[in-house]
Amino acid sequence: MTIKPPIGRDTRLCMSLSARPGNFGSSFHNRLYERTGLDYVYKAFSTTDLAAAIGGIRALNIRGCAISMPFKEAVIPMLDGLAGSAAAIDSVNTVVNDDGRLTGYNTDYAAVVALIAGIDRAMPFVLRGSGGMAKAVVAALRDSGFAHGLIVARNEAAGRGLADLYGFDWAGELAKGASETRGGLLINVTPIGMTGGNEDDIAFPEATIADAAIVFDVVQYPPETRFLATARTLGKRIITGTEVATIQALEQFVLYTGVRPDAEQVADAAAYARSLG
Amino acid sequence: MTIKPPIGRDTRLCMSLSARPGNFGSSFHNRLYERTGLDYVYKAFSTTDLAAAIGGIRALNIRGCAISMPFKEAVIPMLDGLAGSAAAIDSVNTVVNDDGRLTGYNTDYAAVVALIAGIDRAMPFVLRGSGGMAKAVVAALRDSGFAHGLIVARNEAAGRGLADLYGFDWAGELAKGASETRGGLLINVTPIGMTGGNEDDIAFPEATIADAAIVFDVVQYPPETRFLATARTLGKRIITGTEVATIQALEQFVLYTGVRPDAEQVADAAAYARSLG
Repeated sequence: MTIKPPIGRDTRLCMSLSARPGNFGSSFHNRLYERTGLDYVYKAFSTTDLAAAIGGIRALNIRGCAISMPFKEAVIPMLDGLAGSAAAIDSVNTVVNDDGRLTGYNTDYAAVVALIAGIDRAMPFVLRGSGGMAKAVVAALRDSGFAHGLIVARNEAAGRGLADLYGFDWAGELAKGASETRGGLLINVTPIGMTGGNEDDIAFPEATIADAAIVFDVVQYPPETRFLATARTLGKRIITGTEVATIQALEQFVLYTGVRPDAEQVADAAAYARSLG
Repeated sequence: MTIKPPIGRDTRLCMSLSARPGNFGSSFHNRLYERTGLDYVYKAFSTTDLAAAIGGIRALNIRGCAISMPFKEAVIPMLDGLAGSAAAIDSVNTVVNDDGRLTGYNTDYAAVVALIAGIDRAMPFVLRGSGGMAKAVVAALRDSGFAHGLIVARNEAAGRGLADLYGFDWAGELAKGASETRGGLLINVTPIGMTGGNEDDIAFPEATIADAAIVFDVVQYPPETRFLATARTLGKRIITGTEVATIQALEQFVLYTGVRPDAEQVADAAAYARSLG
């Protein structure tokens, strides 16, 4: 096994920019650098000056940067190009710096495409949410061939806009017994159930979950929301926010380093990052 | 002992900017962070866009930055203020970022002041060199009360300018039997004797070294130049480039963290950094 050298002039820095940075990325990437022996270091940053931060990435030749809320659209005009994953949804969550040329990617979109790959495209879906991550998920569904879907969002402009953009239906509230929920895929892309105030809320009623086939929550903390716990108890197949976070971070790792860690290394890094919270 | 936490959102980054970065700073600071349990990480950077790099330091709230050639004067107009050590010589080797307010310091100057503290001020000195580091050393000598000194530098404009600025004499070459060398302090602030082409050269002739009382070389690599080795063989007191590098880095550490490590920790970090080269 290669031993990672001490941090020095040749070490590549990767980073994240977010209004409220978490620690998952730093823990996940640094753990994989240790395990793979790559001469990289990763650190989360916050900023109130996105343009100067991106200028710093260029000036210091920082190798890559994860982009979180609220910078995913604002960063686009500061880049030199967009990869297909970001162009598909006009939203960037990853910047790769090739010696001064900055390219935007969206590994959230790529992660959702990977996670829904095995699902029957004829299955209808109901998705709650209308923000940037909802756009990534809806685009991934459309591009993967899903044809029947309902976007549920109180904000009509955002919700109807998202539904129209990708050819799905919109509703302000989920009607009782809506046909899309029977045998379908339920997806939560709102903060409902998230640690920090919303833990006790549930994205869909238990009766609706009972009717569905698959339940997908993008919330990362807690690892199992009430929504997911209820679905698990009911014997439903579940897709978790931890899976999204892990796969999107893995795809960033591959973009930054050119190295794809094996499944054991990825599982170890994800468990390590979750254990640190 | 406090255990340093894993790198994350709360970890403070310190860094260096240099056209040709070395690894001493990264090794020295990161070793001390480990030993003191402070949540910091240090990395050396190069840049071709100083203004954007300094903008990035502000935007990412990077805590501190060592400034090396060729940026020590150019950085001054980008800062919000200068401490006395930098104002004394119009040269900055350290930037401290207090939540967006950038202050320039010069810890080279401070290190030289500390290293010459015990020497009799009546002793004459001869100093070879006329660059930025020579200015720091000459100013430290003047401000410490040394009154009799000769600057030896082929470049008359730079050498005479430096001598005039601080009230010393200048010569293009060292005359045989110059009075300043007898029982005096000999100082090399040129690359003579440095690893990478000049190792075999010696800053002063052996006969001159034999006449002197104290020999001071700011060259850091190799740790013992021919100039220092000759002086040591002749039983002279010596002051080394390693001492300058260690004390100036220690003063940066204190400015960045507010913590002064003990002598054992400093010696360990300096030995560790030297061992990595």
